[in-house]
Amino acid sequence: MLTLYYARGTIALAPHIALEEAGADYVAKLVDFANAQQRTPDYLSINPKGRVPALVTPRGILTETPAILAYIAEIFPGAALAPLSNLFAFAQMQAFNAYLASTLHVAHAHGPRASRWADDEAAQAEMKRKVPEVVTDCFEMIETEMLRGPWVMGDAYSVADAYLFAVARWIEMDNVDTSRIPRVMEHRQRMMERPAVARALTAHVSA
Amino acid sequence: MLTLYYARGTIALAPHIALEEAGADYVAKLVDFANAQQRTPDYLSINPKGRVPALVTPRGILTETPAILAYIAEIFPGAALAPLSNLFAFAQMQAFNAYLASTLHVAHAHGPRASRWADDEAAQAEMKRKVPEVVTDCFEMIETEMLRGPWVMGDAYSVADAYLFAVARWIEMDNVDTSRIPRVMEHRQRMMERPAVARALTAHVSA
Repeated sequence: MLTLYYARGTIALAPHIALEEAGADYVAKLVDFANAQQRTPDYLSINPKGRVPALVTPRGILTETPAILAYIAEIFPGAALAPLSNLFAFAQMQAFNAYLASTLHVAHAHGPRASRWADDEAAQAEMKRKVPEVVTDCFEMIETEMLRGPWVMGDAYSVADAYLFAVARWIEMDNVDTSRIPRVMEHRQRMMERPAVARALTAHVSA
Repeated sequence: MLTLYYARGTIALAPHIALEEAGADYVAKLVDFANAQQRTPDYLSINPKGRVPALVTPRGILTETPAILAYIAEIFPGAALAPLSNLFAFAQMQAFNAYLASTLHVAHAHGPRASRWADDEAAQAEMKRKVPEVVTDCFEMIETEMLRGPWVMGDAYSVADAYLFAVARWIEMDNVDTSRIPRVMEHRQRMMERPAVARALTAHVSA
């Protein structure tokens, strides 16, 4: 049994989709960000970083989206969620996921989480003002250089698709110029048609 | 044959160390950041993101430090640079590396690369002002929750140690409060005693 700690609107949607795609035996536990549950001693004992996702496994607790996604793909090889038999292709998928984690997600976070990197309100406002430009640039890099199509890695669906879908859910919030990223928008629509994505999304929409 | 594109003072030191630890047959090519070589068409054809490191392999080009480090560990299994036979332990190592890439490295980058996220000079100055606090918090998380000792993953050295060492080289530049991270400082010293680290460092020190 696996337990996924998640919050609505967050990147935890990506491993949530992966667990659904894998047909995993898991429970999803909602962390109430509105009441700062991620800062309570109980949750910090699960993830000292106070973030989601966290995946509780029989072997221990795993954090960080790229690591969780790769692990789900590896422990459910029958689901074919990564190129497990090809070291280089697997590394390329990991490179894609690393870009989302350390560049695109970070660019997005300068809107809702500007206070991580500046105390001054004017500085935070300036960071938020620049979010549409920086996030659009990231999606354009994916559009032109990284998304092979129809799936991220080409013909084979993988956990990288779940990750791209999860960050693409922020496109409207971040005022991304969607005219520059038609292939990313098509990918997002293609993802919506997958039953596993629809099932995972039900937990991420407010009641 | 492998080719590592790197620049001095950058995170490319981490895969450089890993290649030395692995005894790899490789060449290291310096990208001249002072003259913006990373923005030239020649280099953008290697890495469209205009960043280092990039690893050119017979199979293709790989970018993003966590992906490159894991790949080096996997193609040189005899060097024992990762827990290759233990999926969960490997995922934990990847989680550590993901934290460095998407949280600690990002916190550091708000000093030298503040212009990525704000145009206004006052906002950039405010981000730089906060760097010591944010980066110290990251190292303290590593100190208290993540660094098992003597190596990152415990008794076994891994590419995560090379990655931690590379970011720990920025501690003085970032005015980190080293009194709060004695174990991280001991780890850095321990790394300096490894011949592979010394060999990699020679390429990263200006002539």
